Amino acid sequence: MRDKITARSEDYSEWYTEVIRKAELADYAPVRGCMVIRPYGYELWENVKAGLDRRFKETGHENAYFPLFVPMSFIEKEAQHVEGFAPELAVVTHGGGKELEDPLVVRPTSETVIGYMYSQWIQSYRDLPVLINQWANVVRWELRTRLFLRTMEFLWQEGHTAHATAEEAQEETLRMLEVYTDFAVNDAAIPVIPGRKSDSEKFPGADASYSIEAMMGDCRALQSGTSHNLGQNFAKAFDIQYQDANGTQQHCWTTSWGVSTRMVGAIIMTHGDDQGLVLPPRLAPTQVVVVPIYRKDDERSTVMEAIEKIEAMLGQAVRVKVDARDEYSPGWKFNEWELKGVPLRIEIGPRDIAKDQVVLARRDVPGRDGKSFVPLEEVADMVSDTLKDIQNNLLTRATEFRDANTSEPSDYDSFREAATQGFARAWWCGAIACEDKVKDDIKATTRCIPSDQPGGSGACIVCGDPAEEIAIFARAY
Amino acid sequence: MRDKITARSEDYSEWYTEVIRKAELADYAPVRGCMVIRPYGYELWENVKAGLDRRFKETGHENAYFPLFVPMSFIEKEAQHVEGFAPELAVVTHGGGKELEDPLVVRPTSETVIGYMYSQWIQSYRDLPVLINQWANVVRWELRTRLFLRTMEFLWQEGHTAHATAEEAQEETLRMLEVYTDFAVNDAAIPVIPGRKSDSEKFPGADASYSIEAMMGDCRALQSGTSHNLGQNFAKAFDIQYQDANGTQQHCWTTSWGVSTRMVGAIIMTHGDDQGLVLPPRLAPTQVVVVPIYRKDDERSTVMEAIEKIEAMLGQAVRVKVDARDEYSPGWKFNEWELKGVPLRIEIGPRDIAKDQVVLARRDVPGRDGKSFVPLEEVADMVSDTLKDIQNNLLTRATEFRDANTSEPSDYDSFREAATQGFARAWWCGAIACEDKVKDDIKATTRCIPSDQPGGSGACIVCGDPAEEIAIFARAY
Repeated sequence: MRDKITARSEDYSEWYTEVIRKAELADYAPVRGCMVIRPYGYELWENVKAGLDRRFKETGHENAYFPLFVPMSFIEKEAQHVEGFAPELAVVTHGGGKELEDPLVVRPTSETVIGYMYSQWIQSYRDLPVLINQWANVVRWELRTRLFLRTMEFLWQEGHTAHATAEEAQEETLRMLEVYTDFAVNDAAIPVIPGRKSDSEKFPGADASYSIEAMMGDCRALQSGTSHNLGQNFAKAFDIQYQDANGTQQHCWTTSWGVSTRMVGAIIMTHGDDQGLVLPPRLAPTQVVVVPIYRKDDERSTVMEAIEKIEAMLGQAVRVKVDARDEYSPGWKFNEWELKGVPLRIEIGPRDIAKDQVVLARRDVPGRDGKSFVPLEEVADMVSDTLKDIQNNLLTRATEFRDANTSEPSDYDSFREAATQGFARAWWCGAIACEDKVKDDIKATTRCIPSDQPGGSGACIVCGDPAEEIAIFARAY
Repeated sequence: MRDKITARSEDYSEWYTEVIRKAELADYAPVRGCMVIRPYGYELWENVKAGLDRRFKETGHENAYFPLFVPMSFIEKEAQHVEGFAPELAVVTHGGGKELEDPLVVRPTSETVIGYMYSQWIQSYRDLPVLINQWANVVRWELRTRLFLRTMEFLWQEGHTAHATAEEAQEETLRMLEVYTDFAVNDAAIPVIPGRKSDSEKFPGADASYSIEAMMGDCRALQSGTSHNLGQNFAKAFDIQYQDANGTQQHCWTTSWGVSTRMVGAIIMTHGDDQGLVLPPRLAPTQVVVVPIYRKDDERSTVMEAIEKIEAMLGQAVRVKVDARDEYSPGWKFNEWELKGVPLRIEIGPRDIAKDQVVLARRDVPGRDGKSFVPLEEVADMVSDTLKDIQNNLLTRATEFRDANTSEPSDYDSFREAATQGFARAWWCGAIACEDKVKDDIKATTRCIPSDQPGGSGACIVCGDPAEEIAIFARAY
């Protein structure tokens, strides 16, 4: 019998790591701070990729691939950029047995090298917009790492676009924020809050940064995707110019936006429970697991024949796995697939076959309440409907949880408590001094200034000065 | 008007580079030896990936992701491996602003780090086989680089499997060689020759290496994929052990196999002509380009309406692009899409509409011979049939070219000529001394000992000693 997982209420951080390792999503690599994404975790990531990639293509983007190595001099061209990334760089100083004259940086992000290429490719307004995305690995020398959430090397996509006007760049920045929101809400069932980052939380080199912020199961915030309006900062640093329709040279306006393997961490911590993972059906590598139940050898073939029929009925529309391993008991398998978060389980044994039925067991509703008997001929429809229902239920549940842990405190004392225990929505004057005070007092930060604002104005929750916008404050990963 | 491409007969190497850059497949990166894969080239690579990935999954493999950085000490654990790769390593010596105690190698291939992980994951014979593939970037410090064929960083897949017996490892090695052959022949229309590498051409650390060898348009060979039986070499170096059914500890038997972005170079050089790229329909990002033909503005809407109908008739089964740009003439567009190797062009103008027909123009048959008039109602069937025909024709043509440039010389003088000008099939005794002599004399190497052997025996073409096998000798990329 395997060990039980630590309960979330007992030690959330330990629960998180145990779920990842026991469900075989990922493992520690021999190099400090790096991780190995195991097949089950990678398939989940492939489904995240597919959901995002489809949306990128629908909004006119193409994929390309830029080099891993960036000359150190490139990083230094944009003042804020180098300031932000210098402490996190991994540097190649030797190649082919020799010391390099110019050290190479392992990309922490690719604005610089892509900016350089765009300056070569873009000549005329006819070449704009350039809408390119890249799926790649990047490296940031993080000291405190955690599987999926913060690793030295991680996988991500980074979109990089160039436009003729400031307006178009801003539209693109918000369009991709909307794409991320749509993916998070509808595929990952995570009710993220899209909004603008405060100046102190901006991407190094951006005019404005936006993010989607999610609440994890321990009520802490996780920034799950970002979209940056880079203004003309990189265009000027890398001389990305185009000739406009009047024959005048102009600098482009650029954007960048990214979602990483951190999204897998968001999925684990939004939906998981004390039995392990709970995966949203749209992204689950296996949506339905079929567990045959038989005691005697002569029952096996009858049950397996019925399962073949069920597989045929479910067809290609559903990702099904049949667990026909003889060396494990049905109960052991139930635990295994619950740990792995498979949304729906079909159980079938001789007594079910005699009644022309199967048992459906929902992962999102533990125990008896999640079980139902379904006539065999209805299994395809019921599976399809139940998967949709599970997808919706996960979103509803996560939204209710978030809302139950979000408050709108009216004084600083209740604000301190609210922002320590969950999301605090509060008027903020925009001063960094107020952000700093909150950070010092309770280790909470502004997560974003939500796109959806109540309107009007109020008094800053920290200093009492007039404030035009509501911000969300929380402790964050 | 754009510049013409250098003819292949004039300067094959220049032709190759010009096609890549003018068709916007790739570009040079600012770091020496690295390249940028542009959207059109990347989409071609994505189709290569999809064709391979499907075959990997059909043969039971799963994808995973292992770290970019490998401890230097890992590389040193397998004696042949370190000897082979040490001269090509890129080394990270600084991270996060500090000098590292243990330098990290940027993976040139992942046998070592994956071997280490397998030693953690594999306990029992029940855990075997482990069948994992990874899509990743790798870095080898090459001095003489060429776009797609040999770049310092390249994209590839590397499969890594572990088995309980020597027989299973050998079966897997040959199974993947067969998968590569199937992909090359049926998707890329490249008539590769599968076979065993000579001992001197083996992968560093392998017991036996196999490859698929292709003939490029200049009659030189290109190794286009490799599959290695690693025996117990890495299992012993990394202590990958399992307990067999009798309770005895045994070392695993492992394999590795890879195909890289080099395959894109193979496609360019196998099918391309003096007009540019010629892409096999199965892999072409755009299979059919539709070019509207109109002189007066009032003709435009009629033609575009007809094109909408054609698009609807072609549906989702074909990758179609309509080139409706007003700023370019039809003739300019014809050149453009020929350069980009789109297999099939549909031309349609008012006169065609009046006759309820379109013009189909095949990329693989230049000029009038490749053009035909097709009744509008038959366009979907004709496009589908013609794409299949083009796919077959490219394979037939490449096979005929290869065979016309392959000979079976009977003495060393004619062998020298044959192996200089194309593929020479000849008896070889297996001695490295004979390989070295050929290399010194004419810069040709053994490409492989083809799996398909004539049987019997003969006299080594170099030394005259008895020989059991035929080898292919050629100059290679």
